[in-house]
Amino acid sequence: MKILLLNPNTSTGMTDRMVATAAPSLAPDTELVGITATRGFPYIAGRAEALIAGAIALEMVAEHKRGADAIIIAAFGDPGLIAIRELFDVPVTGMAEAAMLTACMAGGRFAILTFSPTLLPWYEDAVISTGLSGRCAGVRVPTSGFKSVDSVREELEEDFVALADRTIREDGADAIILAGAPLSGLAFRIADRVSVPLIDPLSAAIGQAQTLARMRPRAATAGRFARPGPKRTAGLMPALADWIEHRAVDAAAKVEP
Amino acid sequence: MKILLLNPNTSTGMTDRMVATAAPSLAPDTELVGITATRGFPYIAGRAEALIAGAIALEMVAEHKRGADAIIIAAFGDPGLIAIRELFDVPVTGMAEAAMLTACMAGGRFAILTFSPTLLPWYEDAVISTGLSGRCAGVRVPTSGFKSVDSVREELEEDFVALADRTIREDGADAIILAGAPLSGLAFRIADRVSVPLIDPLSAAIGQAQTLARMRPRAATAGRFARPGPKRTAGLMPALADWIEHRAVDAAAKVEP
Amino acid sequence: MKILLLNPNTSTGMTDRMVATAAPSLAPDTELVGITATRGFPYIAGRAEALIAGAIALEMVAEHKRGADAIIIAAFGDPGLIAIRELFDVPVTGMAEAAMLTACMAGGRFAILTFSPTLLPWYEDAVISTGLSGRCAGVRVPTSGFKSVDSVREELEEDFVALADRTIREDGADAIILAGAPLSGLAFRIADRVSVPLIDPLSAAIGQAQTLARMRPRAATAGRFARPGPKRTAGLMPALADWIEHRAVDAAAKVEP
Amino acid sequence: MKILLLNPNTSTGMTDRMVATAAPSLAPDTELVGITATRGFPYIAGRAEALIAGAIALEMVAEHKRGADAIIIAAFGDPGLIAIRELFDVPVTGMAEAAMLTACMAGGRFAILTFSPTLLPWYEDAVISTGLSGRCAGVRVPTSGFKSVDSVREELEEDFVALADRTIREDGADAIILAGAPLSGLAFRIADRVSVPLIDPLSAAIGQAQTLARMRPRAATAGRFARPGPKRTAGLMPALADWIEHRAVDAAAKVEP
Amino acid sequence: MKILLLNPNTSTGMTDRMVATAAPSLAPDTELVGITATRGFPYIAGRAEALIAGAIALEMVAEHKRGADAIIIAAFGDPGLIAIRELFDVPVTGMAEAAMLTACMAGGRFAILTFSPTLLPWYEDAVISTGLSGRCAGVRVPTSGFKSVDSVREELEEDFVALADRTIREDGADAIILAGAPLSGLAFRIADRVSVPLIDPLSAAIGQAQTLARMRPRAATAGRFARPGPKRTAGLMPALADWIEHRAVDAAAKVEP
Amino acid sequence: MKILLLNPNTSTGMTDRMVATAAPSLAPDTELVGITATRGFPYIAGRAEALIAGAIALEMVAEHKRGADAIIIAAFGDPGLIAIRELFDVPVTGMAEAAMLTACMAGGRFAILTFSPTLLPWYEDAVISTGLSGRCAGVRVPTSGFKSVDSVREELEEDFVALADRTIREDGADAIILAGAPLSGLAFRIADRVSVPLIDPLSAAIGQAQTLARMRPRAATAGRFARPGPKRTAGLMPALADWIEHRAVDAAAKVEP
Repeated sequence: MKILLLNPNTSTGMTDRMVATAAPSLAPDTELVGITATRGFPYIAGRAEALIAGAIALEMVAEHKRGADAIIIAAFGDPGLIAIRELFDVPVTGMAEAAMLTACMAGGRFAILTFSPTLLPWYEDAVISTGLSGRCAGVRVPTSGFKSVDSVREELEEDFVALADRTIREDGADAIILAGAPLSGLAFRIADRVSVPLIDPLSAAIGQAQTLARMRPRAATAGRFARPGPKRTAGLMPALADWIEHRAVDAAAKVEP
Repeated sequence: MKILLLNPNTSTGMTDRMVATAAPSLAPDTELVGITATRGFPYIAGRAEALIAGAIALEMVAEHKRGADAIIIAAFGDPGLIAIRELFDVPVTGMAEAAMLTACMAGGRFAILTFSPTLLPWYEDAVISTGLSGRCAGVRVPTSGFKSVDSVREELEEDFVALADRTIREDGADAIILAGAPLSGLAFRIADRVSVPLIDPLSAAIGQAQTLARMRPRAATAGRFARPGPKRTAGLMPALADWIEHRAVDAAAKVEP
Repeated sequence: MKILLLNPNTSTGMTDRMVATAAPSLAPDTELVGITATRGFPYIAGRAEALIAGAIALEMVAEHKRGADAIIIAAFGDPGLIAIRELFDVPVTGMAEAAMLTACMAGGRFAILTFSPTLLPWYEDAVISTGLSGRCAGVRVPTSGFKSVDSVREELEEDFVALADRTIREDGADAIILAGAPLSGLAFRIADRVSVPLIDPLSAAIGQAQTLARMRPRAATAGRFARPGPKRTAGLMPALADWIEHRAVDAAAKVEP
Repeated sequence: MKILLLNPNTSTGMTDRMVATAAPSLAPDTELVGITATRGFPYIAGRAEALIAGAIALEMVAEHKRGADAIIIAAFGDPGLIAIRELFDVPVTGMAEAAMLTACMAGGRFAILTFSPTLLPWYEDAVISTGLSGRCAGVRVPTSGFKSVDSVREELEEDFVALADRTIREDGADAIILAGAPLSGLAFRIADRVSVPLIDPLSAAIGQAQTLARMRPRAATAGRFARPGPKRTAGLMPALADWIEHRAVDAAAKVEP
Repeated sequence: MKILLLNPNTSTGMTDRMVATAAPSLAPDTELVGITATRGFPYIAGRAEALIAGAIALEMVAEHKRGADAIIIAAFGDPGLIAIRELFDVPVTGMAEAAMLTACMAGGRFAILTFSPTLLPWYEDAVISTGLSGRCAGVRVPTSGFKSVDSVREELEEDFVALADRTIREDGADAIILAGAPLSGLAFRIADRVSVPLIDPLSAAIGQAQTLARMRPRAATAGRFARPGPKRTAGLMPALADWIEHRAVDAAAKVEP
Repeated sequence: MKILLLNPNTSTGMTDRMVATAAPSLAPDTELVGITATRGFPYIAGRAEALIAGAIALEMVAEHKRGADAIIIAAFGDPGLIAIRELFDVPVTGMAEAAMLTACMAGGRFAILTFSPTLLPWYEDAVISTGLSGRCAGVRVPTSGFKSVDSVREELEEDFVALADRTIREDGADAIILAGAPLSGLAFRIADRVSVPLIDPLSAAIGQAQTLARMRPRAATAGRFARPGPKRTAGLMPALADWIEHRAVDAAAKVEP
């Protein structure tokens, strides 16, 4: 089974790190392929950037979807998730969605911890659009700053242990999601110092993508995720325009050696 | 007062028609300026298209915002609305948001009627993101098809009268929104044949934009709509990239004659 | 356009002050006419008083509605608002309703600040009946007392700046409503010392009343706000009894010079 | 124990009938005393009338509360209920509130059936203000008309049996409230022809009033129902004005022979 | 009227104490009969224990229901309540349900105070399943520990007075439920030291059981609480198996002297 | 990895059939072990039976948990799920929970179809306790009856295709769960005749159990699912009593050859 790890940020280092971290979550027959955005932001933070990155994610799927059994949007907040489900037929999940759904099996109420306050409104939106507000104990951030997104996982390790503890006591969280691609893997490092289950969004997303890929749900031809009919476009990236206009891309593709 | 009517569709005809229809809603001291997207879709229908158009709307604001006292996103569904509020400082509303807020003063529960079933999930999202699900009696579409978006207002006039009546009786609607830019003005044509108030989204949006413009709320420097700090970008449209990267655009602008 | 500012309190001073404060919110073609209750309370505080004042507001509309294009209930909490919509045909809004609807365009979540704890349950009811609990970050009061309703705006100015700041930080408010007729105008005085948009309910109500008046929604003949048929009454104020019993008041009125 | 059955309608016949119907619901040590409004409407229908009647109910409590262990607002919709709780210290319930709370012990979801469509918005408000929307399967009315409020119970008996049946099948109701004072007693007449428990609001209200009276909850001096301090009034009914202004009425009363 | 006080804990001392405490809540014609579980836990604390105790409560009803006009599940949290309503025809309420419904007539929002943190998730579930989350200001526990369930009422008396006060101020509670059978009677002891009404769950449950018993609602033959048809069982306690398999137990019973 | 398929029904045939059907959902390194209840009901239907079966499920886990990496409660409705999470440390999911969480990745709103109306209230409870009411389009049953639980899958195949179609059109479902262990596998048989993705609860549960097992979340020592301290019991099944009383079972177990 082939799963596409689609990073809508432009940082290839982060993609590589996620692929490396993912190994223990993969079944023996799963291949994980990382791809990185070539335009947009080094690290998406906020809802305007997520809107732009969501449109870029559509371009990436249009270009790279061939052969994928499932796709992971590898940015917590899941830019483009719903639009991808509407336009394309391959099963897809996002790190936020997958983490929250998985957390529902680990605790009555989950909290989301992340590293920067600018991420909060975006992550709060993700909770609402997943329909899980009733099970979310809060979205919180350590008060300490950090130097770099690349090292934030190490810089704030102690802060996250302390914040997790406060969140359990004050907000009644039974499970904690460590959110944001730069925190991938942290859940495993600090698990024995936090008294409730920690959810690693990447690990959750791989689990959920594998669940979808094995289930092979049929593509919808009715309902909210039926593929729209052909539509005229102007000024869009070619692969995406081809797909939206239903041009003979896939047929041509079959001729490829 | 200058209000920008930002049409994120590529159809200039629709922009012109909206500007023409708007006259009775304008205060004596209000000027309404229409601008039309130069890339994207002739008519946005669905959530993937709205995502793409939302990113385009950001480009349009970056390019045209100078001098505007308020902005209207002139597509029901309000592509880019939240992102524009986050990135920019000018007051903004959308046709969906404005219509729903206005409808709350006309009825206990409002219904939204539109012309194509492909629009429903997008409009349902708009209800949820405005937080008014508890006051929405439903989003409905006539069963008849139509030939063209340009003439749908005339083609389905009778169908909308009949559907409004059913919605009042079956869904308990006290006010009805006729949604979608192509229906602008229909509310005034059929008002005396429907037994509850009809809300014209364009008229509502102009009313709300004028309310915001006269109130002159200060730009947020905290909370969900504080402008983000400068951010590096790649591959974005220049005016938008300049704004996001906080480049000296406005300073330069002041030098302009 | 003529807008009636209906103050259901018995303080004419407060009515005058509101009319004076309103000027910047009026379009060039808008006339604002203040009227003051002749029985009831000098200043309504609490839900029992609001019930009594709501019945008085109905009497005031019955007596003064002629010629009005829209009516504003000029007490935050909007006594009688729904009943007025049910009984009469002129568009109406209240300071609480208008402020909350307007705040929805300025922030993701709004908070309501007012000056006396006895007002809280009443204002909380207003949030619920507007259906906007999901967007309300809280209703709060400064801990300091004050000497007089007439000077509370000046007495507590510093307290409101500080409370607004706490509300932004602790409750996640993105917009703040300064509620209660005695605070009219305060929003403009302290705007540059608070980091999110401040909503002045009087200014919002005038904006919304103008929106309704320009839109001229038809009177409902079905749904929750259709005027009830004639009904026998006993012991009610004459103008109100006449209207409820459908006596020939309006016909007579037309004969007036 | 003495319970006051406060009828905010002006029909003494209805009061008498309710008192007569109530016998099987009374404990051996309970006395039920009916009082009838002397101004207002013969039968309240709608939210404007309920607002006016609510203010009248306050007057009635001010005049008649002496010696009562509990009060029942004997009109489904409970005009003045919250205001009475705020102003006075005697325990109080209403027919709507009591019926809904009791129905929660008889079924997972209850429906409310009544006789006139003009009552629906008012009864829907009662569901919302009791906080039981999640347990309400709907508020419905038979399609047949009727000649008189006095005989509606007999006229529509068959219609209510049929409507109850439909409500059980279509709306998933497990318990049914027959709402409106004119239907008092109907629940007992048709119980064996309806397949779920029927709730008679008068019987429920007497049960709940007895529960409150035996429990003798202390009067609140904090929270939403603490009695407000003295307040100046103008033009109110004397007994109510005395109570609101904290005049020495009760002290004087104690001197009464 | 005969009411069964069914204690699903194995402590007969607690049953006796509740029966003794109940006297002031009983009408002159009410007999209260206590029965105690013979297997299970001395004191249920937590949701796994409540599940086991709920199944035991079904056995107790099967064995003891004869002649009862109503049943009270005498453990806050109401183990087995819904299942008893589904299987059996006698009216039933629980201490949690009855306390919450009664509290709705005493305050806008109620809080639940209890003595051990292990009870919280269970009690929170009770709030949710009663559908009253919107009226619940919180479920709280004193920080002090205690020596024995039998004396916790006396040991923590001061703590509950202080916690009630904090709950009123910080959480906005207008009524307070003192939850857990071991606290029965405490409400009456500390009433004059707490500034809002206190609800004693046992007293509330007796009031509600009397309300149900006097109303004599018919047994449902449709909806969620219609008795299921006969069903084969294996390994269940005989009286319960007989009832579920519809064996001729009741017929036989009638022959009993 | 070893996953326990715990069937709380007494039908071994159903367990065998589920294990046989499960193959395509298993990763190469997953072993699925079925165990069947030895007391209770041949097929659980309804909430009283689910309560009893939930207590039995606890006994089964106490007896069989050794060596399991994750447990599946193999009855839609998930009897005992929360209690198992509270008492034991092994990750656990249920067919209802897993199906709903998985369906959230396949559609905006899911519907649940099952074969018998007696199952509805139980399944509705499952939706509520998962916190996904907002994403559930309804729980429906075909009107046709069937002869046997063993053959219902074949008997009603056409009915389910038709009901799925109605649910998509009338209720707006984007994904459909075919609920109840007897329907396991049906989703794969009719997938190409239904126009939205079908969710097979067994397949979903295996996917989710594998996700949990690979993630190896730590056992909670705080929050709602921390294992309770030792507790005295009476009359419980020995293995369960040992576990609840913290007797030296596991230590002893380690000595086993």
